[in-house]
Amino acid sequence: MQFASESVEILIEQFSKLPTIGRKSAQRLAAHILKMPKEDVARLANALLEMKERVRACDICGNVTDAEICIICNSTKRESGIVCVVQDAEDIVALERTGEYRGRYHVLGGVISPLDGIGPDDLNIRTLIERVGASDSDITELILAVSPTVEGDTTALYLTQLLEPFPIKITRLARGIPVGLTLSYADEATLSRAIAGRNTISKPREE
Amino acid sequence: MQFASESVEILIEQFSKLPTIGRKSAQRLAAHILKMPKEDVARLANALLEMKERVRACDICGNVTDAEICIICNSTKRESGIVCVVQDAEDIVALERTGEYRGRYHVLGGVISPLDGIGPDDLNIRTLIERVGASDSDITELILAVSPTVEGDTTALYLTQLLEPFPIKITRLARGIPVGLTLSYADEATLSRAIAGRNTISKPREE
Repeated sequence: MQFASESVEILIEQFSKLPTIGRKSAQRLAAHILKMPKEDVARLANALLEMKERVRACDICGNVTDAEICIICNSTKRESGIVCVVQDAEDIVALERTGEYRGRYHVLGGVISPLDGIGPDDLNIRTLIERVGASDSDITELILAVSPTVEGDTTALYLTQLLEPFPIKITRLARGIPVGLTLSYADEATLSRAIAGRNTISKPREE
Repeated sequence: MQFASESVEILIEQFSKLPTIGRKSAQRLAAHILKMPKEDVARLANALLEMKERVRACDICGNVTDAEICIICNSTKRESGIVCVVQDAEDIVALERTGEYRGRYHVLGGVISPLDGIGPDDLNIRTLIERVGASDSDITELILAVSPTVEGDTTALYLTQLLEPFPIKITRLARGIPVGLTLSYADEATLSRAIAGRNTISKPREE
């Protein structure tokens, strides 16, 4: 026995399918929604349907947008010479939150992962090459901001080889110890990277 | 800057209003829904609307149901002589999960809480009295399964006084140390209750 209402059980089942929401959280959400005013529930349901109806990929970079071209590609305030290549639109949100980056983006839509059956043709790689190779392109640097995983590294390697013919600089995000993490908590792979990528902070004076 | 899509931001905002879902979880959910097939999203949206449309309170006990009378009140297999009084329909789910209880329920819809402006008239107390006092009533015991909080205790006290004229037994759930909890982690109030409510497990032989 669960809730004595089939419609509540159906909602719980639907919620449970979402990531990070288990049966118990779904139940708590349903119990909360039971007490919500009808209009608020309608607003949530509409937001779901509207988003699915309106959202599309930006024609230039693949970012999620409600228009043909996203606000970043449309902005004249962003440097058009630097393009940061990310896996997902979510990564753009994370990078934008830093406030550090003023260039543009390109969303691959994933990484090369033979085990999951994802090859280069399943990603927005062709559009990236077109962007870099366009006659009016002013791109001078591509930052490959893919995750430091096996798949991310493979994708970065693939892109680097593919982009060799073009006169552009290709970079990757620095890898090392996360800010705020105690050294002893860092895993070995991260520590190895941090040692290999160590920065000079003081040099012996040359005499 | 967040997502470059207004409709995604609206969905995130709606999700953030739900309990236990913060901005970051809402973002993760939206990102997942972006990738979900349209039909699955429609199913979730419909489940929300359907539930709000179909769910009502059981005419007898106040439990959530899609029919006039809930399946527990309708069941001939449940003892009708014992009624467990709970705050919310959610509590019924928790109690049913134990598989221990075979009686029926009565949902108060909250507890008396003057600070929140909830008085006895805001709860399903009148229907409880009618149930107990009905000429064909076979109720012999009411279990007051309200939470062991100040408000729960107040409500239990109020109900006990109100039900005094009726020839029924009134009980409350046992309070004590939760199963599995280390003694040192229990708070003082719980420990005091556990001492006061201690059970005899062995008695000196009477000679």
